[in-house]
Amino acid sequence: GHPVYRDMPTTIFEHMSARARETGAINLGQGFPEGPGPRAVLQAAAEALLTKSSQYPPMAGLPELRSAIADHYARHQQCDLSPQEVIVTSGATEAIAASLLALVKPGDEVLMLAPLYDAYLPLVERVGGVAKVVTLTPPDWRVTREALSAAITPRTRILLMNNPVNPTGIVLRAAELALLADLCVAHDLIAICDEVWEQTVYDGIPHRPLIAFPGMRDRTVKIGSAGKIFSVTGWKVGWMCAAPPIATLLARAHQFLTFTTPPGLQWAVAEGLAYPDAWFSEQRAAYQASRDRLAAGLAAAGYVVQPSAATWFLSIDLPASGIALDDVAFCNRIIDEAGVAAIPISAFYPADPVTHLVRLCFSKTNQTLDQAIARLSAFR
Amino acid sequence: GHPVYRDMPTTIFEHMSARARETGAINLGQGFPEGPGPRAVLQAAAEALLTKSSQYPPMAGLPELRSAIADHYARHQQCDLSPQEVIVTSGATEAIAASLLALVKPGDEVLMLAPLYDAYLPLVERVGGVAKVVTLTPPDWRVTREALSAAITPRTRILLMNNPVNPTGIVLRAAELALLADLCVAHDLIAICDEVWEQTVYDGIPHRPLIAFPGMRDRTVKIGSAGKIFSVTGWKVGWMCAAPPIATLLARAHQFLTFTTPPGLQWAVAEGLAYPDAWFSEQRAAYQASRDRLAAGLAAAGYVVQPSAATWFLSIDLPASGIALDDVAFCNRIIDEAGVAAIPISAFYPADPVTHLVRLCFSKTNQTLDQAIARLSAFR
Ligand SMILES: CSCCC(=O)C(=O)O
Ligand SMILES: CSCCC(=O)C(=O)O
Repeated sequence: GHPVYRDMPTTIFEHMSARARETGAINLGQGFPEGPGPRAVLQAAAEALLTKSSQYPPMAGLPELRSAIADHYARHQQCDLSPQEVIVTSGATEAIAASLLALVKPGDEVLMLAPLYDAYLPLVERVGGVAKVVTLTPPDWRVTREALSAAITPRTRILLMNNPVNPTGIVLRAAELALLADLCVAHDLIAICDEVWEQTVYDGIPHRPLIAFPGMRDRTVKIGSAGKIFSVTGWKVGWMCAAPPIATLLARAHQFLTFTTPPGLQWAVAEGLAYPDAWFSEQRAAYQASRDRLAAGLAAAGYVVQPSAATWFLSIDLPASGIALDDVAFCNRIIDEAGVAAIPISAFYPADPVTHLVRLCFSKTNQTLDQAIARLSAFR
Repeated sequence: GHPVYRDMPTTIFEHMSARARETGAINLGQGFPEGPGPRAVLQAAAEALLTKSSQYPPMAGLPELRSAIADHYARHQQCDLSPQEVIVTSGATEAIAASLLALVKPGDEVLMLAPLYDAYLPLVERVGGVAKVVTLTPPDWRVTREALSAAITPRTRILLMNNPVNPTGIVLRAAELALLADLCVAHDLIAICDEVWEQTVYDGIPHRPLIAFPGMRDRTVKIGSAGKIFSVTGWKVGWMCAAPPIATLLARAHQFLTFTTPPGLQWAVAEGLAYPDAWFSEQRAAYQASRDRLAAGLAAAGYVVQPSAATWFLSIDLPASGIALDDVAFCNRIIDEAGVAAIPISAFYPADPVTHLVRLCFSKTNQTLDQAIARLSAFR
């Protein structure tokens, strides 16, 4: 035996960002927006740092932020949570870790859908869980009852999922979410639903929180991220929401992971969540325009772009674009030869990877996107 | 079976702070300084927020902060670390959690010394470790070869310890540290050494990092906390330092716990660690004066105060003070009747608790200390 983490590589996002820093490549790999973040939010944080306490806030978060999160969900997603059901974390990654530490006991099976975020599997294994991964495939990545039912056993306790989906930019259809909810109820599963992309959904598509589906109110952990909502990925302010019996367990795990989260940043996020609806639609519209710009530019350069309805990512299809390289080889080539960093979709599969898609991040300035398009165009 | 955290109570610090908030009691329970923290550090953070990136910094921390930590230890502790051996975390609690997640595999025995910080035991159990606790007792809390040897078995892999010690305010003697180092080498243990109180040592006593003892350089994780050093406990900026083979494993665990730590706060801490030596001695002198003020005031009121050489805490001895209550009963009485919150030392023992000592936090203004003294004096 050896520690579970011994053989893990560094996360692909950090690896590609480090290579981009070394080589000076345009970084369309790791998902983060270019630029400092919205001025008002930054200023609110700076002011809170100078005028409010920098000492331990309450372990579960500032009451003002817990209320602001509950209010935000009531307003934006018709989702009814009380502030006591919200626990602030040091980023959504901590929320996922805390949820698994709190809810999985050794031997429990955890159902997941691939492609999946690369933290899920090591965390599940580290807490003693047994991963059961249902692999979804392009072009439509459909979730089916057959595939899910085949993966569920009497030892299945948890569904760990992401919607909207990183890396595909898919928004799960209402019928798929209803199916997942149905199976959770039928098999008495708790759903840990990573919804960090809930505010980056385009083309007028609504975000449908799993917790609002029939039977899910008391068996769902809803995870969110201020870093994504406010384009400040380094802030590491996230949260997890659940009915009180689950929230109590989540708080136990959180108190021994980070205990609490910087209060100055919490104040600023509380302020931001109360911005008028127009603020959020403008952010969405801006990211949608960036998506369209990158997609159009790549298409004009001869790349076949997959549809993306959400997140900061779109994918290109290598064989359809006439490129005879797999995703890893292509990413290695373009970082060195074109000066563009990207992420191979195979990094999101623990087994049986899809290897013909490459993810590009579009939350960048027009100038950066145009330069990346020009470089990828010249590379062909 | 049930999740490990199910039966855990809320941490005693949060519990007492919540009661203090509800009742308006003076909070000498949870360890945090009164006031906002040093103006220069707060301003550095506010400025970094407004002028530097709020996006993901490198996963292991800003290079500038990793260098500043290494430089700080070279200057203050003659302790020679390279920046690559430093990983920045979202507080020392995360560093402890990441170290245990990275280094303990199910069935490994973890040696600890009680009294111990209340996060240690649940974390050790959650990662599948088997706790072996050596209980130290007043008045001198001495660490002996006999007690340690009796607790070590062929399955012992890790020593998890704290020095200077919360809650006792003890600084381990050089001979005790040499003994611990000796046993780690003899039994091939890794030491996780929580040294968050390294800068709050009084009376001219030096801090002796365990990693600097013979044979320990490649088998020690040295954990530190900017929250303690700069009196900003809410910032949750900490770090863990270890030789590269161990640091690599720590980074694996960290990337799936919080991934990274707010860059604005990291910049400010990097700046602060480079302050001149006089800055740190002034901080120490101020805390020492607060310790002396509280100790003298309590003594004048008839309480018997235990010596405290470090941390923000001192303890009173109840029976020696002529008080016929155990520590929990006394804490419950004084929060309601005197309006002062404190922490019972028994909360730091998983078994066989010492029950006649009560911990008080002295990192407060003179006015607050005097008021607490007056209230505790009237209570007698
Ligand atoms: C924590 S780094 C990963 C950021 C992200 O969400 C992505 O690039 O997929
Ligand atoms: C994380 S709350 C505990 C703070 C502290 O170090 C103490 O009060 O002992």
